[in-house]
Amino acid sequence: MRLVNMEEKVFKDPVHQYIYVQDELIWDLINTREFQRLRRIRQLGTSFMTFHGAEHSRFTHSLGVYEITRKIISQFERHRYEDWPAEERMVCLCAALLHDVGHGPFSHSIEPIFHVDHEEWTCQIILGDTEINRVLRKADERLPERVAAVIRKEYPQEIVVHLISSQLDADRMDYLLRDAYYTGVSYGTFDLDRILRVIRPHQGRIVVKESGMHAVEHYLMSRYQMYWQVYFHPVTRSSEIILRNILKRARSLYQQGYAFRFLMDPLPALFEEKLTLEQYLKLDESFMQMTLMQWTKEEDAVLADLCDRFLFRRLFKYTPLEEKDKPFVNELRMYMKDLGIDPDYYLEIDFPSDLPYYVYQPGEETSKKAPILLLGERGQIIEISEKSEVVRSISGVHKGTNQLYYPREWLKQQTSAWPAELRDFLGM
Amino acid sequence: MRLVNMEEKVFKDPVHQYIYVQDELIWDLINTREFQRLRRIRQLGTSFMTFHGAEHSRFTHSLGVYEITRKIISQFERHRYEDWPAEERMVCLCAALLHDVGHGPFSHSIEPIFHVDHEEWTCQIILGDTEINRVLRKADERLPERVAAVIRKEYPQEIVVHLISSQLDADRMDYLLRDAYYTGVSYGTFDLDRILRVIRPHQGRIVVKESGMHAVEHYLMSRYQMYWQVYFHPVTRSSEIILRNILKRARSLYQQGYAFRFLMDPLPALFEEKLTLEQYLKLDESFMQMTLMQWTKEEDAVLADLCDRFLFRRLFKYTPLEEKDKPFVNELRMYMKDLGIDPDYYLEIDFPSDLPYYVYQPGEETSKKAPILLLGERGQIIEISEKSEVVRSISGVHKGTNQLYYPREWLKQQTSAWPAELRDFLGM
Amino acid sequence: MRLVNMEEKVFKDPVHQYIYVQDELIWDLINTREFQRLRRIRQLGTSFMTFHGAEHSRFTHSLGVYEITRKIISQFERHRYEDWPAEERMVCLCAALLHDVGHGPFSHSIEPIFHVDHEEWTCQIILGDTEINRVLRKADERLPERVAAVIRKEYPQEIVVHLISSQLDADRMDYLLRDAYYTGVSYGTFDLDRILRVIRPHQGRIVVKESGMHAVEHYLMSRYQMYWQVYFHPVTRSSEIILRNILKRARSLYQQGYAFRFLMDPLPALFEEKLTLEQYLKLDESFMQMTLMQWTKEEDAVLADLCDRFLFRRLFKYTPLEEKDKPFVNELRMYMKDLGIDPDYYLEIDFPSDLPYYVYQPGEETSKKAPILLLGERGQIIEISEKSEVVRSISGVHKGTNQLYYPREWLKQQTSAWPAELRDFLGM
Amino acid sequence: MRLVNMEEKVFKDPVHQYIYVQDELIWDLINTREFQRLRRIRQLGTSFMTFHGAEHSRFTHSLGVYEITRKIISQFERHRYEDWPAEERMVCLCAALLHDVGHGPFSHSIEPIFHVDHEEWTCQIILGDTEINRVLRKADERLPERVAAVIRKEYPQEIVVHLISSQLDADRMDYLLRDAYYTGVSYGTFDLDRILRVIRPHQGRIVVKESGMHAVEHYLMSRYQMYWQVYFHPVTRSSEIILRNILKRARSLYQQGYAFRFLMDPLPALFEEKLTLEQYLKLDESFMQMTLMQWTKEEDAVLADLCDRFLFRRLFKYTPLEEKDKPFVNELRMYMKDLGIDPDYYLEIDFPSDLPYYVYQPGEETSKKAPILLLGERGQIIEISEKSEVVRSISGVHKGTNQLYYPREWLKQQTSAWPAELRDFLGM
Repeated sequence: MRLVNMEEKVFKDPVHQYIYVQDELIWDLINTREFQRLRRIRQLGTSFMTFHGAEHSRFTHSLGVYEITRKIISQFERHRYEDWPAEERMVCLCAALLHDVGHGPFSHSIEPIFHVDHEEWTCQIILGDTEINRVLRKADERLPERVAAVIRKEYPQEIVVHLISSQLDADRMDYLLRDAYYTGVSYGTFDLDRILRVIRPHQGRIVVKESGMHAVEHYLMSRYQMYWQVYFHPVTRSSEIILRNILKRARSLYQQGYAFRFLMDPLPALFEEKLTLEQYLKLDESFMQMTLMQWTKEEDAVLADLCDRFLFRRLFKYTPLEEKDKPFVNELRMYMKDLGIDPDYYLEIDFPSDLPYYVYQPGEETSKKAPILLLGERGQIIEISEKSEVVRSISGVHKGTNQLYYPREWLKQQTSAWPAELRDFLGM
Repeated sequence: MRLVNMEEKVFKDPVHQYIYVQDELIWDLINTREFQRLRRIRQLGTSFMTFHGAEHSRFTHSLGVYEITRKIISQFERHRYEDWPAEERMVCLCAALLHDVGHGPFSHSIEPIFHVDHEEWTCQIILGDTEINRVLRKADERLPERVAAVIRKEYPQEIVVHLISSQLDADRMDYLLRDAYYTGVSYGTFDLDRILRVIRPHQGRIVVKESGMHAVEHYLMSRYQMYWQVYFHPVTRSSEIILRNILKRARSLYQQGYAFRFLMDPLPALFEEKLTLEQYLKLDESFMQMTLMQWTKEEDAVLADLCDRFLFRRLFKYTPLEEKDKPFVNELRMYMKDLGIDPDYYLEIDFPSDLPYYVYQPGEETSKKAPILLLGERGQIIEISEKSEVVRSISGVHKGTNQLYYPREWLKQQTSAWPAELRDFLGM
Repeated sequence: MRLVNMEEKVFKDPVHQYIYVQDELIWDLINTREFQRLRRIRQLGTSFMTFHGAEHSRFTHSLGVYEITRKIISQFERHRYEDWPAEERMVCLCAALLHDVGHGPFSHSIEPIFHVDHEEWTCQIILGDTEINRVLRKADERLPERVAAVIRKEYPQEIVVHLISSQLDADRMDYLLRDAYYTGVSYGTFDLDRILRVIRPHQGRIVVKESGMHAVEHYLMSRYQMYWQVYFHPVTRSSEIILRNILKRARSLYQQGYAFRFLMDPLPALFEEKLTLEQYLKLDESFMQMTLMQWTKEEDAVLADLCDRFLFRRLFKYTPLEEKDKPFVNELRMYMKDLGIDPDYYLEIDFPSDLPYYVYQPGEETSKKAPILLLGERGQIIEISEKSEVVRSISGVHKGTNQLYYPREWLKQQTSAWPAELRDFLGM
Repeated sequence: MRLVNMEEKVFKDPVHQYIYVQDELIWDLINTREFQRLRRIRQLGTSFMTFHGAEHSRFTHSLGVYEITRKIISQFERHRYEDWPAEERMVCLCAALLHDVGHGPFSHSIEPIFHVDHEEWTCQIILGDTEINRVLRKADERLPERVAAVIRKEYPQEIVVHLISSQLDADRMDYLLRDAYYTGVSYGTFDLDRILRVIRPHQGRIVVKESGMHAVEHYLMSRYQMYWQVYFHPVTRSSEIILRNILKRARSLYQQGYAFRFLMDPLPALFEEKLTLEQYLKLDESFMQMTLMQWTKEEDAVLADLCDRFLFRRLFKYTPLEEKDKPFVNELRMYMKDLGIDPDYYLEIDFPSDLPYYVYQPGEETSKKAPILLLGERGQIIEISEKSEVVRSISGVHKGTNQLYYPREWLKQQTSAWPAELRDFLGM
């Protein structure tokens, strides 16, 4: 790899104080168009509607993941751990920096609708005709392939994959600290320095010195708290549902040949699920928000209304839905239809347990879910939940109150004729 | 004023921990379209290109100014200060919340070009056909006029104006703390609680107990540091210059009848300086960024290049310009023309002293510059710079290194034939 | 109660920013000799030997408990909760401020040896011939009795007792935050503001709104972490063991008629367990440390050595002791005797589970252990561990690795003849 | 120097997060009796009476100075600055750690009375028959002499002296941050990381890159604020005056042959100013506080009363004293004598300008006052106050309101017959 030395550069960062860039390759990657684009993709999607401070972008998070990875590696190097493959440093740093580069706007809402997979796009950006690809290739012809392999979790040196994507990876460590900082909640705080001090490479894995178990418990508890307090917050869920329904409606209209007043490239390609790389890169949150703004003037009342709701935060209200309440949903659906409100876009049950998150699951051995291993004093390896009752307790948590979302303010005036039980259930 | 009591609501805020909303009127104002729109206007314009964390919006800042004002008033009420006109509470809170509601995208760059005045727009939003106006009027028919008068600094109760707009106002106190928090610099921190404890109403002004002078010194020093370290940062200035030149170029093209590939409403009205209120409200940063993105494909090379520079952070570099260096500027201008680079869009001298900021100027007695007054133990009033050498020292500071901005990377390869002195000056 | 109004006074506090004193009675209590004496009693006993920052006194903690209680009450008053007996305010504040006033030096070590009970002394100080008693009586003749009843948990208004002493009381809330601040660990941090917002008085108890459950989980997790990371730290335990053995040795020598070179009043009374109140109040940490310093010159080698160890931090080392290792203890005891080292003072098994702490135990219904109750949306009361798997998990935790403490450096050179298994067990 | 490698050890520190010990020599020095004794000497003397949180010891500060020095050096090494004499690392670290080891209890009050000089004692401890001396000599026979030379500012490599003792040294940097942390004031905070990034060795001095000037301004402003807000606080001054008068009284009684009820070794030697090193090391704050406690029972009323005042915080009150008020002092002195109150012990004028502090004085070129130098872009050296108006302004500040201290509560009832002007001046 032809690496060019350069004077250390720093970024001021509110979470890590400073982010240190010591390699020209990293500097050049940060300055590519594709990486700069991450400034226009928010890290927490629609969470800013619940926590107004959470307006930070994936750009800042990506720098943070890079910085934590850099610190981990520099610690491994300082201690000269034998199990650390020193030659993997640059691949690690690049993968850390670029791991989210394929994210589009409001990924959690858009991806399931249009079958977009940000990891796949990340690889295309690394391997395709992009500035990132050129910068990587300039350093080493094989670097794009290697970095993409890390993203795909197919890189032969498993430890490299684990640094970027495991239960205790640089990605999670940065986003917990960062999301806590920007939302202002105190839950996400844990002792990063201490964790950096107790992890080490061991036979192709990252393990934690047993004496550091409590620091990891603390980190996992932070995660647990952040999920239930921030990531799954029902107000955020409400805005995500509305956004998803906007996209479903727009696609449906498009398929029916509806004449949009506003439909700019690359929206048709998005609806037809045949975006080129260049088109995908145009999709940022400015584009999406501006589109929604235009659509508030569309003739289609459902589309216009949903966009208005999203942009001006007139969200659906929610009611906890227990198993026994299920019959009410059908009843409500019927009454809504009577009122001319299409339940396909205005009534939704949300199952948090369906969400692609989990606090900690030691059992399944997929890439992202690689368990956290403790290294005992005598060199033995122990899965953390065997040792920690706290971890065990949160591993099993499937809280998941289901919630029913609907435009309460539209129904409020109309319910006099509804059955008392239904009104009771809705609290109206 | 018909005020409706409601259960206290809170927003989690990273700067003030919590923002307490105790009046239905405030709650309703926050939920208007015009106020929600502030989520799409960044507080620090292009500063995020220098300090990547500074992605926060005017929405969060406006809530913060409201909260500080609420705290000040509640402190005044708790101490039952006679000089506090208790009936002004709601006007103060509304003005605090709404003081920035007329801001458009990247105001510092756009306003001078198109003769936009955000204060004027704030008043139009308060007085015009808007949700904000309706909410205010519902509480009290005369409330819009009263709030607008505060914004215009024409409100008869001078103390109300001073709370929102003076050298020691809720606006500055929030933005220093908030901008420091989001950029991550430590300079902006001062002891807000202590300042809240030492200010009091006195004969129509806000004054500071003399024993609290050091707390105010600290606040003014924070401001001094924030100006030079953050607000005037040359990288930020560079991006502002580029943005301004984009707008100048686009307007010039428009005036020449250039056929834009992309030119959506309300851009023509912006160029012609005849925006309606409804049009103005459509202008947010999503709209502007998306427009710039489209313009990167315009045929006009200057416009396309400048937009690309802005979006992908290929900024102009800068060289300090002392008086004696002025001749180099003309020389450089000539050489640039020879290279086919239009100096009207690619060469700019920046005089920070022209900027609409000042650290502290006791002399001039305009609204925003109302001096900070100390209240001595025997009731005498002293202007702070008479007492504090520190304040005196920073009042006089006109640091202002002028800087010359230009696309260094374009010139680099071409300078072999240039005079040595010029190359020396540019450090090439 | 004859209360005198006074101008609000404040103390700058690193944990709560400011401590507000609004009642002359509180101000006068703080200025009594007995309360000022708390400056000479450290909050965390010998923990400063492990965490050098933890040098804070019970004085600062007592102010903190007062301040949290004041905030809770002022919140109750602001919301005008009906279940809050407003007339109990002053009793609460006094009890909060004074709850630890009977603590002596290094209580955790001294109390079990000399059968001292700090709660009993607290009541004597409140009821006896003291400045505190006079200040209380000046406000209301019956106040001393009432405050003492709160301390003894016999006050008829149970809610007053719970504020000061329960699983979620002002005492614990302050010490977790404060001890975390001074040690520098991040574990003890939780969102005090949020907890203050979700607790309320309910039928003579403090309950927590169900929606605030996660904030309480967070607080209990902080407690769990602080216990294992800070309070039970084996290095701290080591210094406590040495201190206890010093006192045991000194008493034993005293009982044997040993001629101390230094034995100042009130040490004899302490050994004979017949301290008067006046004598007890003389016992502060200056007195104890200075006594230990003098004893480093005693002829009795055990006493002199143990004092030297304590003052200059030559602590016992420790080895984890599992059930199966028990036989080694007897063996080691024998070998130590052979070497002339008295195992009564130099060998100790520590069972953390014996310690007077527990993370959370819903079962037992004693005063200090009153369970934390959630108030559901429909007014039902739920014990928190029924609802929270996290709380359930830490309630059951009896980690408690037993440790064996001994002067490792004395043995090191002498073990060549010992059985390999024993040396192995000791890691020598 | 025979250095032994060891596994890195860490101390948890609330100011620097962690303190890293990488050399066995440092580890051994920390574990000496003389260094451990610093746990019994408070960093801020009597300031805890004003700021109750400020109970931290010189032990924690000394570790902090060591850590900052370690960071500076490691930064110098990482950048391989040519002007850094790498072989001086260990001397620097030892001098940083030990620079305060000669401090006695309440140095600021005791030193002027008994002509004690803590720097001299520091050298004696380093050079005399101590554990510290033995540990240093084990590493290198000449090390004690070299470290003592640094303390005395006579070390030939001036840069080593400057690191430990100059206007921008590790000592000041730690104490500002630490004292701010423990008192809880926000003034002392500055950006240590940034300062570490902009300093470098240059021709035997530490200089600051000119671009880092604002960070140094910020640091100097923090110092300015801390001096006036914390270090010179009149309540702290009051307690120092009382302590000084206690010692003056006790010495005077001793010289008159007064029969003390309590007078333990080494007090006589202290009074006679002939303490041996061993005796000096016995003098810690436990000893002093315990002595004062015993003296509250002395027959001499002045001594007993002053001790009682100090221990139970019944401090002298103060009145600002302007030039024109001087006559009142004599008058008051006379009236006090009439009341049988000895003005030699109960009346004191305090001139803060006499204090051995100064914010920043570029002029004088003594060791401690070595000016702060900027390194310009072209290698030129500029004294910071030439460049910075802010620094210039605080360099000249000699605020110094004189204060008159006296036992106001004793006089209050007795002043009816006094002249109105005097009573007015005293505000009685």
